[in-house]
Amino acid sequence: MDTHPISTQTLRRLPVYLSYLKHIPQRETATISATGIAAALNLNEVQVRKDLSAVSSSGRPKIGYAVRDLIHDIEQFLGYNNAEDAVLVGAGNLGKALLSYESFKDHGLNIVAAFDVDREVVGGKISGKPVYETSQIEHICRRLRIRMGILTVPSVAAQEACDALVRGGVRAIWNFTPTHLDVPDSVLVLNENLVSSIAVLSKRLNERLMEEEAL
Amino acid sequence: MDTHPISTQTLRRLPVYLSYLKHIPQRETATISATGIAAALNLNEVQVRKDLSAVSSSGRPKIGYAVRDLIHDIEQFLGYNNAEDAVLVGAGNLGKALLSYESFKDHGLNIVAAFDVDREVVGGKISGKPVYETSQIEHICRRLRIRMGILTVPSVAAQEACDALVRGGVRAIWNFTPTHLDVPDSVLVLNENLVSSIAVLSKRLNERLMEEEAL
Repeated sequence: MDTHPISTQTLRRLPVYLSYLKHIPQRETATISATGIAAALNLNEVQVRKDLSAVSSSGRPKIGYAVRDLIHDIEQFLGYNNAEDAVLVGAGNLGKALLSYESFKDHGLNIVAAFDVDREVVGGKISGKPVYETSQIEHICRRLRIRMGILTVPSVAAQEACDALVRGGVRAIWNFTPTHLDVPDSVLVLNENLVSSIAVLSKRLNERLMEEEAL
Repeated sequence: MDTHPISTQTLRRLPVYLSYLKHIPQRETATISATGIAAALNLNEVQVRKDLSAVSSSGRPKIGYAVRDLIHDIEQFLGYNNAEDAVLVGAGNLGKALLSYESFKDHGLNIVAAFDVDREVVGGKISGKPVYETSQIEHICRRLRIRMGILTVPSVAAQEACDALVRGGVRAIWNFTPTHLDVPDSVLVLNENLVSSIAVLSKRLNERLMEEEAL
């Protein structure tokens, strides 16, 4: 098994493989090849082969992988057996949506608490998770030894919430705001910038429509 | 100005530049250099310079860009003056969050209607947008000449909803489900796979924590 750091693109594909593998009929006894997975998911075969060999050594020439073993190896690699505790700041519509995704826990993320400024929700629970005042972020993160925070606040509140998480010991932030966050080098930020996705999808669509018009 | 197709990474950064530029004090008269933007956003200077020159020819040596002109050129390039009409399928928590983002319209996306199976919401409005039965997807997309669809349904309903959008003439799908969608070659899919993001963030966090422990 390759012990070098794995590429981000490979990491992004692993849950996609997993989702596919879990829907294979009779997966307890089935086998599958990288070629089969590539064909089913419209991916490059060489890429799939490389991805799988980075996380599993259970493949056998001409037979492929036992589906059950491959599921186990990918889950093991992604740490799904040991979900990371996280807090979420900003319990608006998007925050509520993320709090209610039961399946996050099966994918390595366990949201244990939320924070908000709205007195209507503070003190209550959303999807079984307690909601605290944002003034409590630092204290509660320290007490629960939280290392991951999710930011779903409005843009104007993003940096302040981020700073509180960092003071509380958080080391990785999943940022759903379009704001660029200033963090120390020791803190990781993953930007889930929806506005960037719109830019990509609109532009690619328009390029294609213009090509067709030109034909 | 470069007329070659622009890279996806550049496209993803353009809204980030825009968000930064719009928060510059006295932006009507200010000027800014690629170096200044790169420093503020923690980005590579060469990359920023290249991105900006691909979308604007208004920069001047030693002076940089008039902030006002650069904002105009980026918005023009991204088509923000001409927002794309879209429909959304699946008006659960995430769907509601996306329907309520007023700022999408300023970023080139105008959600005009939603579809759901839940009789509690069908026939009503969410954030001012009408909610129709999913059986109406094909018909309404055709009638409104919709080219973009947003999928926020549960995984099990994803392919069926996707097929209805495609039959209705939709050419670009923003897929928030973890499901791999089968579409004709003429249809673009952008996967916003949240479970993939968790995989990246958890793994990078754990790599870093293990490195620190090893020190």
